[in-house]
Amino acid sequence: MSERPQDAKPQYPTALGASSLESITLLGTDLARDVMGTVGFGELSFWLATQRRPTPGETRVFEAVLAALADHGFTPTAIVTRLTYLGAPDSIQGALAAGLLGGGSRFLGVTEDCGRFLHDVLSGVDGALPVDDAGWDALALETVTAQRALGRFVPGLGHHVHKQGDPRTPRLMEIATQEGVFGPHLSLFAAIGRVHEQVLGKRLPLNGAGVCGAALADLGLPLELLRGFALLARTAGLIGQLAEELRHPVANDIFLSVDLNNAPVDPDPYAAPPLPAAGGQA
Amino acid sequence: MSERPQDAKPQYPTALGASSLESITLLGTDLARDVMGTVGFGELSFWLATQRRPTPGETRVFEAVLAALADHGFTPTAIVTRLTYLGAPDSIQGALAAGLLGGGSRFLGVTEDCGRFLHDVLSGVDGALPVDDAGWDALALETVTAQRALGRFVPGLGHHVHKQGDPRTPRLMEIATQEGVFGPHLSLFAAIGRVHEQVLGKRLPLNGAGVCGAALADLGLPLELLRGFALLARTAGLIGQLAEELRHPVANDIFLSVDLNNAPVDPDPYAAPPLPAAGGQA
Amino acid sequence: MSERPQDAKPQYPTALGASSLESITLLGTDLARDVMGTVGFGELSFWLATQRRPTPGETRVFEAVLAALADHGFTPTAIVTRLTYLGAPDSIQGALAAGLLGGGSRFLGVTEDCGRFLHDVLSGVDGALPVDDAGWDALALETVTAQRALGRFVPGLGHHVHKQGDPRTPRLMEIATQEGVFGPHLSLFAAIGRVHEQVLGKRLPLNGAGVCGAALADLGLPLELLRGFALLARTAGLIGQLAEELRHPVANDIFLSVDLNNAPVDPDPYAAPPLPAAGGQA
Amino acid sequence: MSERPQDAKPQYPTALGASSLESITLLGTDLARDVMGTVGFGELSFWLATQRRPTPGETRVFEAVLAALADHGFTPTAIVTRLTYLGAPDSIQGALAAGLLGGGSRFLGVTEDCGRFLHDVLSGVDGALPVDDAGWDALALETVTAQRALGRFVPGLGHHVHKQGDPRTPRLMEIATQEGVFGPHLSLFAAIGRVHEQVLGKRLPLNGAGVCGAALADLGLPLELLRGFALLARTAGLIGQLAEELRHPVANDIFLSVDLNNAPVDPDPYAAPPLPAAGGQA
Repeated sequence: MSERPQDAKPQYPTALGASSLESITLLGTDLARDVMGTVGFGELSFWLATQRRPTPGETRVFEAVLAALADHGFTPTAIVTRLTYLGAPDSIQGALAAGLLGGGSRFLGVTEDCGRFLHDVLSGVDGALPVDDAGWDALALETVTAQRALGRFVPGLGHHVHKQGDPRTPRLMEIATQEGVFGPHLSLFAAIGRVHEQVLGKRLPLNGAGVCGAALADLGLPLELLRGFALLARTAGLIGQLAEELRHPVANDIFLSVDLNNAPVDPDPYAAPPLPAAGGQA
Repeated sequence: MSERPQDAKPQYPTALGASSLESITLLGTDLARDVMGTVGFGELSFWLATQRRPTPGETRVFEAVLAALADHGFTPTAIVTRLTYLGAPDSIQGALAAGLLGGGSRFLGVTEDCGRFLHDVLSGVDGALPVDDAGWDALALETVTAQRALGRFVPGLGHHVHKQGDPRTPRLMEIATQEGVFGPHLSLFAAIGRVHEQVLGKRLPLNGAGVCGAALADLGLPLELLRGFALLARTAGLIGQLAEELRHPVANDIFLSVDLNNAPVDPDPYAAPPLPAAGGQA
Repeated sequence: MSERPQDAKPQYPTALGASSLESITLLGTDLARDVMGTVGFGELSFWLATQRRPTPGETRVFEAVLAALADHGFTPTAIVTRLTYLGAPDSIQGALAAGLLGGGSRFLGVTEDCGRFLHDVLSGVDGALPVDDAGWDALALETVTAQRALGRFVPGLGHHVHKQGDPRTPRLMEIATQEGVFGPHLSLFAAIGRVHEQVLGKRLPLNGAGVCGAALADLGLPLELLRGFALLARTAGLIGQLAEELRHPVANDIFLSVDLNNAPVDPDPYAAPPLPAAGGQA
Repeated sequence: MSERPQDAKPQYPTALGASSLESITLLGTDLARDVMGTVGFGELSFWLATQRRPTPGETRVFEAVLAALADHGFTPTAIVTRLTYLGAPDSIQGALAAGLLGGGSRFLGVTEDCGRFLHDVLSGVDGALPVDDAGWDALALETVTAQRALGRFVPGLGHHVHKQGDPRTPRLMEIATQEGVFGPHLSLFAAIGRVHEQVLGKRLPLNGAGVCGAALADLGLPLELLRGFALLARTAGLIGQLAEELRHPVANDIFLSVDLNNAPVDPDPYAAPPLPAAGGQA
């Protein structure tokens, strides 16, 4: 960790919230006069993350993504929020935070992985990007073939429930098209949907979490934060879960369904993976 | 904890997200067709929390509240998110969750406390609620006087920076009036603003966190979750903080400003508060 | 929030960890030479919390409490840690943190509540504390009677499983007696166990979480942190849960047992609790 | 996610805590009779994580590691716990959880990274492991050279403060030697300390977090959980930080030192990294 000259008083620059005796600004804009009552919550979230105000079309696509990711019923994150509330009803913030902590690589990660994957492919194109479906199909074919050769999945391809198509995918593509922000990430993703069967020998759906990652990338949002937007959407969903739990609780039943079906077993002592034997002259 | 008959298969009812092979619904509505592209994020958040779709006017007030609470610069929650990212850049969800955990009774609690306080006063009114300013002023006077007699603060009254008025307060009242949702909580809060000086002998501002609580209560949102809405707003703010930290980092400087100014002191052994001495025949 | 003179450079005093080019100290003690290899983890935890080194007897009681609270199988906190790991296997810290967040008022709170309750009763004794069982019984009778009159439970009394006695309770009392730290909190708690039937008309067990609170209070630990020690114990338990989940996973089965048994229901629009009607001249 | 036959009642096996009407067991052992008062907290934590009871020598090394990692003064995790408590004093669990969330790849990761790195090198040895210092030095030389060729650091090598040696390193090696658990991970790590200067051209210390990882790996603990043990140690440290904050608070001063030194700047609109231009025939 680098050291900082200690004679200088530290300064912490920020373009976000600031306040003085008489005013409050956010992103250089008067909060009360020019944000409250004028800027919707999706638009504001986009603005805060990028420090640029999105167009109405960008906002519409962004909010469609947030809607697509807000809640999927009894996911692990939803169950966690409800069980945490059961144990600590005094701390709403703890119940929400616990739920968000399950939003990692496996359950909310597809959005991020897909956006990054598409971006990496696009960045690595030698020459110009395609301008028509035939061009995108060729790039997609190359991409899927390369992943297959590496023994890797294509992020965003396949879904454990919506095996014949995730309804969010065509809808988000439609909205992005309407708003003129159907860019290279969505183009490549759509092409992957058209061509992968040639390589993989079976037809898989383009899933909704993946298309959301493609759309967020086309909106020019920071790739490092794609998971963050999924978490923002999920926060709204988890508040919905909590609100329902408060009125129609199921957490105690979930707890009991596990606890009462526990099956005591003998300890299974852990053995570390073996190393080569000590030898000597070897 | 009550026990549940174990012969019955557990069932977990929910009106939130559900999916089948071909469709995804949210709150009984087709997600792709009727939510995505149609319902804004603020509107959706309200809907998820109440299971009823808000009117456009309610949505506008709700989103104004979220804007008012989204970010206030270098609050403890913002600092915490940045420092957590410094230590664990591999976990965006951890940085956001850590920030939210500071959203407890002291910093984000005013919204909740104020909403609940006003609601308790209103619920306890013996007879009918006032219909004009004079009536609200009388109730407010009684309320402030009673709090004072109990040695308690009135939640939402006073601000450590905006001593001559928090600009969010009149603005939110204006928006609520425009949208026809200026109800009894805001009426009582406004009246407290008019009359408290008679009791307390000094003029204090009605703060923005407090007026947000009053407005959320007038929107009919669950009082138990008022803090949750502040946390939702803050999630968007914390993503903004993270986005800025990624590009213009300050967390390491903050860390060093503390660590390099640590002052080692001798241990100060803890002594529990004394109890009466053991006596005997007492 | 009070303001601090800004001309003074901030200084942050601490008696905990400090390091220089050549040494590392903890609580004023040389870490490498005088702590590592010499001070057990329970002893160190006590020392860190109180800034005084416990006696071997105090350490034994403290570690017995930690053992009593470390793990109780599939509690909500254990389920939460496992489910969070399922969603975010990239973040061990997130899985542990999520589990701890369920350690609030309901599940881990008894330890804290019981310690505080006993302390409050003892602090309020007018005169001297009892010196024999008869004296403690009289105080306990008064205490249980007063709680009953207030319609309140006695914290630590009753257990949903160990209805005929929690085996941890007599064992911890025995250890505390052996070590000479059976003080007024345990004395009062034991007396409550003897006399409550006279008041309540039924015999309830003194539960293990409660006796732990009494013992921690007798050890002179800060009442504000009693829940913290329960959380420390639980951290070790949650690591055990994670270790088992890594080798014999059940989280996905738990998730599916909930998700596959979801029962979609119609939305149930929330209605805020009613207020008095607006009246007017009232 | 695989599906599970729904006709079978789910069963959740565990060897950890279990209770019946009359007894409580932990790892198949009677908790009250054979764990409480007998098993120290470090020993119990080891046992819970491995489902095997450590020897006294293993426990001593394990507890020395926990002591080495418990607290380092005003680290980001400590600051985060204090600031979170400032905002949410109602939630001790939130303050501890928030602190742990900073225990990720950067600050607490060295222990894990070092243990894994050494294990990977040892696992990849073709033939037998060395039996003397000359053999270990040869392997270490090869290892450091290979890392350098890859442009990678050797985990555990170097320290930003203890540039002439971290006092924890020789001490932990001494304790491990005394207890007969100085195994191949520590042997390789020590050899890296002896030979790296030949490759890197400068002498760096073996840091304490690294040697802890080597020692934990030699104890046969699961590599996936090495970070977990660092977090366990840190939990005790964070309770110490909270205890000190309760009596000698600094969090508000830290907050103000940041907030009062904020420097408002203009928004800096984010631009996504550029992609190749759209071309067509390319």
